[in-house]
Amino acid sequence: MSTAVSPLAPKSYPALPAVAGVRFATAQAGIKYKGRTDVLMVLLDEGADVAGVFTKSRCPSAAVDWCRDNLAGGRARALLVNSGNANAFTGRKGREATELSARYVAEAAGCAMGEVFLASTGVIGEPLPAEKFAGVVDTLVSEAEAGDWQGAARAIMTTDTFPKAASRTIDLGGQTVTLNGIAKGAGMIAPDMATMLSFLFTDAPIAAPVLQELLSEQVGGTFNAITIDGDTSTSDTVLLFATAKAGGERVERADDPRLAGFRQALGELMRELAQLIVKDGEGARKFVSVTVTGAESDASAKRIGFSIANSPLVKTAIAGEDANWGRIVMAVGKAGEPADRDRLAIWFGDVRVAVDGERDPSYSEAAASAAMREEEIAIRVDLGLGEGKATVWTCDLTKEYVAINGDYRS
Amino acid sequence: MSTAVSPLAPKSYPALPAVAGVRFATAQAGIKYKGRTDVLMVLLDEGADVAGVFTKSRCPSAAVDWCRDNLAGGRARALLVNSGNANAFTGRKGREATELSARYVAEAAGCAMGEVFLASTGVIGEPLPAEKFAGVVDTLVSEAEAGDWQGAARAIMTTDTFPKAASRTIDLGGQTVTLNGIAKGAGMIAPDMATMLSFLFTDAPIAAPVLQELLSEQVGGTFNAITIDGDTSTSDTVLLFATAKAGGERVERADDPRLAGFRQALGELMRELAQLIVKDGEGARKFVSVTVTGAESDASAKRIGFSIANSPLVKTAIAGEDANWGRIVMAVGKAGEPADRDRLAIWFGDVRVAVDGERDPSYSEAAASAAMREEEIAIRVDLGLGEGKATVWTCDLTKEYVAINGDYRS
Repeated sequence: MSTAVSPLAPKSYPALPAVAGVRFATAQAGIKYKGRTDVLMVLLDEGADVAGVFTKSRCPSAAVDWCRDNLAGGRARALLVNSGNANAFTGRKGREATELSARYVAEAAGCAMGEVFLASTGVIGEPLPAEKFAGVVDTLVSEAEAGDWQGAARAIMTTDTFPKAASRTIDLGGQTVTLNGIAKGAGMIAPDMATMLSFLFTDAPIAAPVLQELLSEQVGGTFNAITIDGDTSTSDTVLLFATAKAGGERVERADDPRLAGFRQALGELMRELAQLIVKDGEGARKFVSVTVTGAESDASAKRIGFSIANSPLVKTAIAGEDANWGRIVMAVGKAGEPADRDRLAIWFGDVRVAVDGERDPSYSEAAASAAMREEEIAIRVDLGLGEGKATVWTCDLTKEYVAINGDYRS
Repeated sequence: MSTAVSPLAPKSYPALPAVAGVRFATAQAGIKYKGRTDVLMVLLDEGADVAGVFTKSRCPSAAVDWCRDNLAGGRARALLVNSGNANAFTGRKGREATELSARYVAEAAGCAMGEVFLASTGVIGEPLPAEKFAGVVDTLVSEAEAGDWQGAARAIMTTDTFPKAASRTIDLGGQTVTLNGIAKGAGMIAPDMATMLSFLFTDAPIAAPVLQELLSEQVGGTFNAITIDGDTSTSDTVLLFATAKAGGERVERADDPRLAGFRQALGELMRELAQLIVKDGEGARKFVSVTVTGAESDASAKRIGFSIANSPLVKTAIAGEDANWGRIVMAVGKAGEPADRDRLAIWFGDVRVAVDGERDPSYSEAAASAAMREEEIAIRVDLGLGEGKATVWTCDLTKEYVAINGDYRS
């Protein structure tokens, strides 16, 4: 397996500002990997609120179950993330491992187990050796500091090829607040699958129910608008923590006008992190946006967008730099959503290749091919039926994807 | 692109018996390919009934529209199939091409245009040069004979690597009747997509509405239970013709007890042809059956089966001979169907790898790995919820699939 950094990686990794009330440390617990950090502990000062969204899988990991239960309280003091073992499909032993992990953290951090959040990514079906955390939690707590966010992002990687972190500074009713986020994306450990984790931190004073509403309204157009291979992990987790350390009056309602800037910045930050995950998709060489307009509804547009973005034939054509709009037609047709073949129009970049249900008479193969040679490719489909629209992001399907996910035994 | 025959191909291609009332011939019309047959014409004696099922795509090909319209009459005298051009997404020109094709055939065969059926497979979005049929239809009609069914199957191939034909001899109320079928599967022409065509012929005396009912009831467990890549073609077509030349009293009702043997044989024949299509899937090295039991309904079991069979992570694991049951858990979880993680059991071949929501305590990695090295792999999932069950068939996802569908420009 190649360890080269994705060709779609950012050119540099800027240092992120501190978020007041957030400290963290990383360690090597030896869960699976040797010689690299595999545990991230984040400590939140007393008074932090939390919101979360999770995988829709019917077979969620034990850590996801744990977080869902604790989210009811709305308060957080600590987050423990490990890579190397997903603690998924581990039955009773999995539940015991989450309890043991949370107990270690609660004792070391001096908080309640209900204020400890957990996330795990890695191998499925192997019991998580939570007792290995015993040796590192005290050091993690004593060493936690405002610290290096790129290092934190690095500790939660599996076979991600670059760390994913982003930041925004926002005006909240005259108060300046900071919003930082880290994420991990598609990785492979034998045997493993793509898992999406993201953790967002702000010093803004926002109550948990408002955080939850903000997070839920933004996730549809960001993390839930990306696909590498259409395979939903058992462990997907996004958590948003707010420490209130920036001061100012607490935001208690989601329609508070002070939230305008925060809401927009949160959406932008989540979109940036989501797109970084796509840019580190297994074997990815192309970053692809699929925009569907003119659908009967936004939901219908999104389903058609995912039908295109998940189609192996569309994704292999993109890998081959092939302006194969026939496969776009196919993917629209199979989506099961309202569509009228004879009103369909399709663009690659600025080049309209099809209109009114047939090849565009003025379509230039050379111009379309040039658009396909770009590193970032915009596909647009107009259905000509209504006002519904959506954009989703994906990458191409290359032989490296097959190699990463199929070859490790050979 | 490799022209090697699929390793999953049958060892031999037996000659099929004649079907009374069915004659056919092949020709080189030069639609796209050079130096090989690309047109199949089948002539049916007066009095033949017909039934059909088609792609569920919202962007069906012009030939599919044509067949749907003519099916209302229930009578067939001719079938014209071309490879090299799908006549899909071709707008008004596509409709004109089907009319012109049918007119040539009707004039040459001396029948009504409403009794002519058409199927096209190949490039999407290119106008079909139907005028090229003018030069071959008279010869096709004059040369048509009981003939070589494997040759007929070969003429409708695109990049299929072997011809697909099967036959059954059936007792129909004391009368012996014959049922023959041919099919084509996943192929690639630049630019193209997998297209499934199958044509079934019998000399049994069965009325069109009964044929339609038989075909519709069998298609769910056969052609609609296979997947290569989850990409539904614009052109999928199955037609069943009955010439009545075997004699005997005409079957006018689907609950006629004389149909018992025919119904079973039709299902078997369709399943055999469907499985041959999977065995010629692009880049396929493994033939995989996925059986889901214990679901809340048969429909739910089938959706879970397809979630497994279409998962790129499951299919790449199979290519890598990796007994990666964590990915099966993932695919069950993402299907959106009722499932209880803690009741799930999973088998590879005879090896139970997971039970009661965790790894089987007596699971042998060596035994599971041995099962994965077989050319044919049976995956079974029991949900422990109800009586619903379904089996679907697929193949592995290899680098050759990506190469076939992405590399042709490089």
